[in-house]
Amino acid sequence: MPTYKLTIAYDGTHYGGWQVQPNAPSIQALLQDALSTTLRTPILATGSGRTDAGVHALSQTAHFSFEEVLDLMRLRASLAGLLPHDIRVKQIETVPDGFHARYSAKGKIYHYHLHLESNPFKRLYSAHIQHPVDLDLLQRAAALFVGTHDFTSFASQPDRGSAARDPVRTLKRLDVILEPDGIRLEFEGTGFLYKMVRNIVGTLLEVSSGKRTLEDISQIFSAKDRKRAGKTAPPHGLFLMEVIY
Amino acid sequence: MPTYKLTIAYDGTHYGGWQVQPNAPSIQALLQDALSTTLRTPILATGSGRTDAGVHALSQTAHFSFEEVLDLMRLRASLAGLLPHDIRVKQIETVPDGFHARYSAKGKIYHYHLHLESNPFKRLYSAHIQHPVDLDLLQRAAALFVGTHDFTSFASQPDRGSAARDPVRTLKRLDVILEPDGIRLEFEGTGFLYKMVRNIVGTLLEVSSGKRTLEDISQIFSAKDRKRAGKTAPPHGLFLMEVIY
Repeated sequence: MPTYKLTIAYDGTHYGGWQVQPNAPSIQALLQDALSTTLRTPILATGSGRTDAGVHALSQTAHFSFEEVLDLMRLRASLAGLLPHDIRVKQIETVPDGFHARYSAKGKIYHYHLHLESNPFKRLYSAHIQHPVDLDLLQRAAALFVGTHDFTSFASQPDRGSAARDPVRTLKRLDVILEPDGIRLEFEGTGFLYKMVRNIVGTLLEVSSGKRTLEDISQIFSAKDRKRAGKTAPPHGLFLMEVIY
Repeated sequence: MPTYKLTIAYDGTHYGGWQVQPNAPSIQALLQDALSTTLRTPILATGSGRTDAGVHALSQTAHFSFEEVLDLMRLRASLAGLLPHDIRVKQIETVPDGFHARYSAKGKIYHYHLHLESNPFKRLYSAHIQHPVDLDLLQRAAALFVGTHDFTSFASQPDRGSAARDPVRTLKRLDVILEPDGIRLEFEGTGFLYKMVRNIVGTLLEVSSGKRTLEDISQIFSAKDRKRAGKTAPPHGLFLMEVIY
């Protein structure tokens, strides 16, 4: 049975997140509805992972299987017509048997956007930081997260039961990039625990504002206790940029 | 009585436009409410001109008079606390007696954004063009609008009575700028008639898609008839960038 891979961009502002859930609209549910309507049979689309309420994606991925060989141009046009304007299927490809959006992924890239001056056009796409940021300190703090670590202290409890997962992850890079009117944090890793990016950002901001020191970070890592790290940064600054296969 | 000039950025998505109106929230009304609350007396704020529903501004201007010398830092902080996040007062200055946000203006700069691929993050801030655009043709068509002309054919009737105005305006430049994922049209002029930018954009798009020819443009100008020009381009691609004094 052919397997199809979808690459999807969405503005997460008006959704409860990627994943189908009982009390809020989700990107996954709307995508499955559009696929099921087009293909006239119920379709399940499996994502590379969840994104939370308010989190955005430039290239989330998902896969589904369907018994027929599809005309991908026609399918894409149909989905464009059925999906709301804040969700867009950028690409549809046929992938080899056994491809799985989540289990085949080798890594992910996330960007987190910060801005220092309140800005009507950034309010939904970047977190507004109300204190001055010491960029050099932020870069030195970010460097301490790169590498292979037990990230337990930076993982929130999922809101639904899930088996305990190995908390060791490899962050390949965490780049701090100064932009004309803000800061962009680029995360690339082999995998991320629940809310890990936002918990790291929250901790970095507490260091950059002087609330914590650079030395605190290694203590937070060794404590293996979520309560020791900083607050979770708001969702709307976060973008899933790429799922690497 | 001291006069104060405000420079204001807003996301026009959720408003009926700049101007106070009976059945929709307006930026002017919210600004006047915030000023009146802060200064404990009714304040009228006069804008440089209206922007329509859905049109955005990076630097709209307005003025108001008040009998006391104000602490501008405190006033700005109070307005930031009272206004919603999609309206931001960027600057407050004391200006000489007689300054008038509209009548003292020497010119305005507008940008109009177009994109060719549907994009969830542009849907509220750029017009999606569904046909291929011939950039060279667009630039040649744009050049025909620059200079001093009677723009009657590109002026919509205001929705409320207003005295007939001189329809001659000078467009100092209309630059067509190719961006990584779209096109930006930059208009600078001494003044603009009602919906003039959007009516010019609509006409330019009909030329660039081959629906009209370059030669049609001079005929549209001479007809002095709004019905001869193209459709009004959608509001959400339009940004008031600067009011020049």
